[in-house]
Amino acid sequence: MDISEIQDLNNSDPLQDKAREFHLPGDKIYLDGNFLGAMPKAVLERVQDVLKREWAEELIHSWNDNDWFVLPGKIGDKIARLIGADKGEVIVSDCVSANIFKAVMAALRLQKGRTKIVTELGNFPTNLYVLQGIEKMLDGKVELIAVERNEVLKSINDETAIVVLTHVHYKSSEVFDMAHYTEVAHSKGALILWDLCHSAGVMPMDIARLDVDMVVGCGYKYLNGGPGAPAFVSVAKRLQSKMEQPISGWWSHATPFLFDDNYNPAGDIRQMQSGTQSVLALSALEVGIDLALSADMNEVRKKSSQLGQVFINLLQENCPALEIASPANDEKRGSHVSIRHEHGYAITQALKARGIVVDFRAPDIIRFGFAPLYNSYQDIWNTVQALKHILDSGEWDRDEFKLQATVT
Amino acid sequence: MDISEIQDLNNSDPLQDKAREFHLPGDKIYLDGNFLGAMPKAVLERVQDVLKREWAEELIHSWNDNDWFVLPGKIGDKIARLIGADKGEVIVSDCVSANIFKAVMAALRLQKGRTKIVTELGNFPTNLYVLQGIEKMLDGKVELIAVERNEVLKSINDETAIVVLTHVHYKSSEVFDMAHYTEVAHSKGALILWDLCHSAGVMPMDIARLDVDMVVGCGYKYLNGGPGAPAFVSVAKRLQSKMEQPISGWWSHATPFLFDDNYNPAGDIRQMQSGTQSVLALSALEVGIDLALSADMNEVRKKSSQLGQVFINLLQENCPALEIASPANDEKRGSHVSIRHEHGYAITQALKARGIVVDFRAPDIIRFGFAPLYNSYQDIWNTVQALKHILDSGEWDRDEFKLQATVT
Repeated sequence: MDISEIQDLNNSDPLQDKAREFHLPGDKIYLDGNFLGAMPKAVLERVQDVLKREWAEELIHSWNDNDWFVLPGKIGDKIARLIGADKGEVIVSDCVSANIFKAVMAALRLQKGRTKIVTELGNFPTNLYVLQGIEKMLDGKVELIAVERNEVLKSINDETAIVVLTHVHYKSSEVFDMAHYTEVAHSKGALILWDLCHSAGVMPMDIARLDVDMVVGCGYKYLNGGPGAPAFVSVAKRLQSKMEQPISGWWSHATPFLFDDNYNPAGDIRQMQSGTQSVLALSALEVGIDLALSADMNEVRKKSSQLGQVFINLLQENCPALEIASPANDEKRGSHVSIRHEHGYAITQALKARGIVVDFRAPDIIRFGFAPLYNSYQDIWNTVQALKHILDSGEWDRDEFKLQATVT
Repeated sequence: MDISEIQDLNNSDPLQDKAREFHLPGDKIYLDGNFLGAMPKAVLERVQDVLKREWAEELIHSWNDNDWFVLPGKIGDKIARLIGADKGEVIVSDCVSANIFKAVMAALRLQKGRTKIVTELGNFPTNLYVLQGIEKMLDGKVELIAVERNEVLKSINDETAIVVLTHVHYKSSEVFDMAHYTEVAHSKGALILWDLCHSAGVMPMDIARLDVDMVVGCGYKYLNGGPGAPAFVSVAKRLQSKMEQPISGWWSHATPFLFDDNYNPAGDIRQMQSGTQSVLALSALEVGIDLALSADMNEVRKKSSQLGQVFINLLQENCPALEIASPANDEKRGSHVSIRHEHGYAITQALKARGIVVDFRAPDIIRFGFAPLYNSYQDIWNTVQALKHILDSGEWDRDEFKLQATVT
């Protein structure tokens, strides 16, 4: 590939104007939207309005007058459109970890008599940790079956209460076949929960049509909701009236403002909430969701795949010795491409010194995340040129790049 | 009391300058800081900086470079100073409901063999609902003993795993004797968890000296952290190495960024976290906490008591028929005073129409919250004059004030 092909791709990109909606630092190429999405410019005005008018001036009346009370469901309905859920099936609440906990506990109650939870080894750690926490808490009543990817399907059986999988792997970027795994789980009478952290906002989905039982996802990656943005959780309508989750705080109550001593669950998706959510955080997230909704998700996926493909092609041409740790097949790859290198941390730092922001995942993975709403083909070209230079010249091999790995 | 006494109180108020640190709408008297604190002016600049510099410009590097990773503990340590906990005993995390869940589950594990949870009927509902959720989840293994206030002490015995009480009652404003109840709980081998939602930021406390085991509290009332601000949770150091809570997301892990498949708890207060928190929400909260720390908490308590006492005195003089539903004794009353009236909702609306913001708690309670950092004695005077007029003239008895009670 040469630069003219890159320019052609840029020029014919139907999403090229979306980048203007984001604040992108002039001195950086940002390929870490899969960890923290860039800031939508409209966030500034929205948050100012929440602070200056809604909070400072209108104070408690904003709970009613500015829709603070219904914000988790209102934004949830917008997310539903992004992932193909029905209205009333998604709510914004807490963090992903708490939502996994709540959803799985609700599933165990719905699936009384079934005692196994199936998941993948190497799943994003918080999924494993929360499931291990549930197993320990229930003290032998439930068993976690964590197996390699190729063992997942055969591990689902008539003892399986729920299968917990992540749609796109946080390291390898591999995509699970959501339709197939959901179908197999259902054929065994198991429920399935999909973690959409690395796919919501960059892949079209149709979770209602696939009859998916539950999903969780985060707001701070491709949804561009800001650092630590609230997470979301979805439960299929057919399960909502029967579901019960144990962190049954007042926001999950049918009538929280009657202040009754006895718990009476909301009976709809509100029941997956627990307590009061940050209105600031919710409002910033809504701006990111609105931007995602302004794009055709099929175009987004197409560009995401193409950014990845161009990156892989350029790597193969320019850095042929590099080990690519993500699928070459577009269908099987999410919106980031990982490479594996024993000096991954130092290389990440060398890229950073050149203004190219990617991230390192211990022990040896460098992730290049592609956010189709603001990354260009030129970004990819420049990144590979820089990477080639860093590798060929040994530029990464400097003391300042070898500091003890911190966290990003 | 006459207006000159009120003016004297205002003039000699050592906290009078603090009000300038808050944005207070010119057309309102705000007596609902016990439900949503007013906005500290410095929040605007802080949040702008988080958005424009930390998020938009510095992006993922802010996790390290701008201390995003350590923010929950950093703010927790500031809250610790407010409530008399030790450094490393408090962390900001999630909502109060989730923190109650985590703390009580940790307590049950620490107290193996003890099967009762004691609480008060009429406790803030989310406390009751979460405890009911735990009881149901554990399916007979644990029993919730919810009793009237005067039955609490005698209900604590050698089967009690943990006692869950709220320091200041959300309706009546009654204060529990934290020292005595803690001592009785400990004498029976029970742990105790105090909910500080209505006391943190307006009462000096010394939870370390009292040997309190656990506390939770919210950030959006007297801590002025903004709508739905993150909550906090504290666990005494002596319990931290043994505690385990089941929503064991990656932020509770000893080394989250090693991405290990196996859960290894942090072994300190970080273990009470679950997932990623909103940096926006945390940053706004920190501004409120800093303001609270800038005042002498003994002066705050003194003014809080005096505002309440003046309010009660003026009510007795001006509206002698009104039922005051809070203790007259300063020591036994938190920072709000409630009155009971069968037309409480309409009266709240009539006050609102006069720019006086208080809140209604079903079925018949009107709460007048006093935030010593920004409320003045003049506010109290004006409020009682308005209330007297509304009651004497029957101004509350209008159709527009009798709408179906909504939520605030």
